Amino acid sequence: MLTLYHAPNSRSTRVVALVHAMGKLDEIDIRTVTISRQQGNDLPDDTNPHPEKKVPLLVHNGEMIRESSAIMLYLTDHFKSPLGPQIGETGRGEYLSWLSYYSGVIEPVIVGNFMNVQGNPVFVSTFRGLDEIHASIERGLSRGPWIMGDGFSAADLLISSPYLWAPHLLPENPIIRDWVKRCQEHPSMVWAGQYT
Amino acid sequence: MLTLYHAPNSRSTRVVALVHAMGKLDEIDIRTVTISRQQGNDLPDDTNPHPEKKVPLLVHNGEMIRESSAIMLYLTDHFKSPLGPQIGETGRGEYLSWLSYYSGVIEPVIVGNFMNVQGNPVFVSTFRGLDEIHASIERGLSRGPWIMGDGFSAADLLISSPYLWAPHLLPENPIIRDWVKRCQEHPSMVWAGQYT
Repeated sequence: MLTLYHAPNSRSTRVVALVHAMGKLDEIDIRTVTISRQQGNDLPDDTNPHPEKKVPLLVHNGEMIRESSAIMLYLTDHFKSPLGPQIGETGRGEYLSWLSYYSGVIEPVIVGNFMNVQGNPVFVSTFRGLDEIHASIERGLSRGPWIMGDGFSAADLLISSPYLWAPHLLPENPIIRDWVKRCQEHPSMVWAGQYT
Repeated sequence: MLTLYHAPNSRSTRVVALVHAMGKLDEIDIRTVTISRQQGNDLPDDTNPHPEKKVPLLVHNGEMIRESSAIMLYLTDHFKSPLGPQIGETGRGEYLSWLSYYSGVIEPVIVGNFMNVQGNPVFVSTFRGLDEIHASIERGLSRGPWIMGDGFSAADLLISSPYLWAPHLLPENPIIRDWVKRCQEHPSMVWAGQYT
């Protein structure tokens, strides 16, 4: 059995959506915990084994797996899910790239925009900015309705997720807006948004 | 054949070190390109297919793989290398966690420290800080000389690499300092540092 630590309306919501989309709700024990939030009274939860009391956290065979991108990859590999290309399949390299690009570029750039430091030369040199992210997303969407082309994948759930809490950062581009809407209206995303 | 785009003394150096450590120099075509640098006169290189002219970039069967953590995982999986636990092996979840944690936390925190924004509440809430990173590294090193215990891995090359260009961010902790020294003196890291 795998155990997923989750807090409603947080970064773990997209992982719960993935579990639902894979049809594996009966194989993963989802435990709801509190997390400290910037707005609100919630406190870190002693029952959450994450060293910094963050979510999501996945535990499997005593091993802790942290960071959304690592957890999503671990899950699609473990269940050999079509929601993530497997080793040796076409798209595997692209899939790993989207997951890493989310963690290493998209999220820092969005946080940098919230902090209003997106023009700092060190920031730009390291991460570039929203324009480059949106160009990357548009390139992905040039082949089909989803970010890797024809097939919906865990990458769609991850890459679209920041626009749930930062819709003002969405560009005017209708291709990207339609894709974000498609992701947010995906039955698994809707289901996960209501899961407590 | 796989093709790796590399610029000396850059984020691709650790990937060149991994190729050397895996003993796969004859199976990967390493192409040296220029990149724009904060200090120096180098310009982006038209022969680099990376959309933002960054390095490293790996190309395999026409697929572009970007971001160091994705490239290192792709390489240790592709070559079934003991430098990264394979799917189903003990340590796989931890390995994915270290790679994602590097991209999603360690690098943003180090860049944030360079920008002197590490005290911003949004920044702390998202990434935490150097203290938490060093606590994580120390937990990793509590089981052996390397970050995942007994065996040297690609995670050691990646996680130790920022201290090459930011040695002033190293904590006093001798366990961490000795490990960084061990990584920097690893024959593959020394070899890659001289590769042009």
